[in-house]
Amino acid sequence: MAKVTDSKEKTLIAAAKLFRRQGFHGTALQDILAAGGAPRGSLYFHFPGGKEEIGEAALTMAGEATRQGIARVAEASESAEIFLTRMARHMAADLDASGFKEGCPIATTALETSAQSEVLCAATREAFQKWEHEIARGLQRFGMTAEEAGPIATTVLSQLEGALLMARTYRSLEPMQRAEQALKLLLRAK
Amino acid sequence: MAKVTDSKEKTLIAAAKLFRRQGFHGTALQDILAAGGAPRGSLYFHFPGGKEEIGEAALTMAGEATRQGIARVAEASESAEIFLTRMARHMAADLDASGFKEGCPIATTALETSAQSEVLCAATREAFQKWEHEIARGLQRFGMTAEEAGPIATTVLSQLEGALLMARTYRSLEPMQRAEQALKLLLRAK
Repeated sequence: MAKVTDSKEKTLIAAAKLFRRQGFHGTALQDILAAGGAPRGSLYFHFPGGKEEIGEAALTMAGEATRQGIARVAEASESAEIFLTRMARHMAADLDASGFKEGCPIATTALETSAQSEVLCAATREAFQKWEHEIARGLQRFGMTAEEAGPIATTVLSQLEGALLMARTYRSLEPMQRAEQALKLLLRAK
Repeated sequence: MAKVTDSKEKTLIAAAKLFRRQGFHGTALQDILAAGGAPRGSLYFHFPGGKEEIGEAALTMAGEATRQGIARVAEASESAEIFLTRMARHMAADLDASGFKEGCPIATTALETSAQSEVLCAATREAFQKWEHEIARGLQRFGMTAEEAGPIATTVLSQLEGALLMARTYRSLEPMQRAEQALKLLLRAK
């Protein structure tokens, strides 16, 4: 059974990477098969719902990995400012290391499918909500109340998402560096 | 000739709307033909480069329309705060009126094609840069120096882009309302 689970997981990891780089519609089932190395039969066995089912599972997996990453950064930080700065720098480092190919793991699919697939829209919504919640929890570690932390977490995430989009498009880290400064100002002004 | 130009323009307007709602890869040439009402032959006549050429022209057109919109809002505003607030509200109103189907006109295609098409990536990059420049120009109308306005314009745009993405995914205007508050704090804290 371990081998079967392996092949399922490999497929999801390959799919998540492709969706991150080129979006949901830009990725064919054939691309996922080629990248994940799974035989076509195993793909239909694990995901009878086809590409949409793979999409849902891959987005959920990628969303959960990012949520855990946010929690780890919060736990290892000494202040709210260090927490937000490190989060921005992790994202910038991922983008840079991938040659500006890997920005937000779910934003492309979120925008593509929002008006087209209730299943995929719900998966991206749940991931964003988890991240917001984790950012708010992180801010509360450093003395913010829940009432303060909620709205700030929303604006922190939207600032970072927008900056990742611009940085990817510009192929420059400058929008991420400016976002980092904006997050510091937001913390001080709140 | 007027009729020919009309058919070219109608095709671009239809294409821009489809790319805005469902992205570049999620839109087939057939969808553009059906929505624009142009005969297939006229499409190949006007856009011998096919879908990528239509994409480039449609993104450039949509980018220029938004740039003009930003300039108009700046000219009609009495302060930097009113300018940024109105810009956020215009975007939120468009999203709301479309049943959360019409967010940023170019973000979906920007993310989808960034790693795949130099032509489309360049078209989205130029549009974002024009918007940033127009926001910076607007801020300078209200007394900001060019040195201050540049970095703030980047963070204003990334805040709004990220909030539009989240608002679309959540099907809620709350991220836009929170972004509006964040923009006010950024202006005061700068």
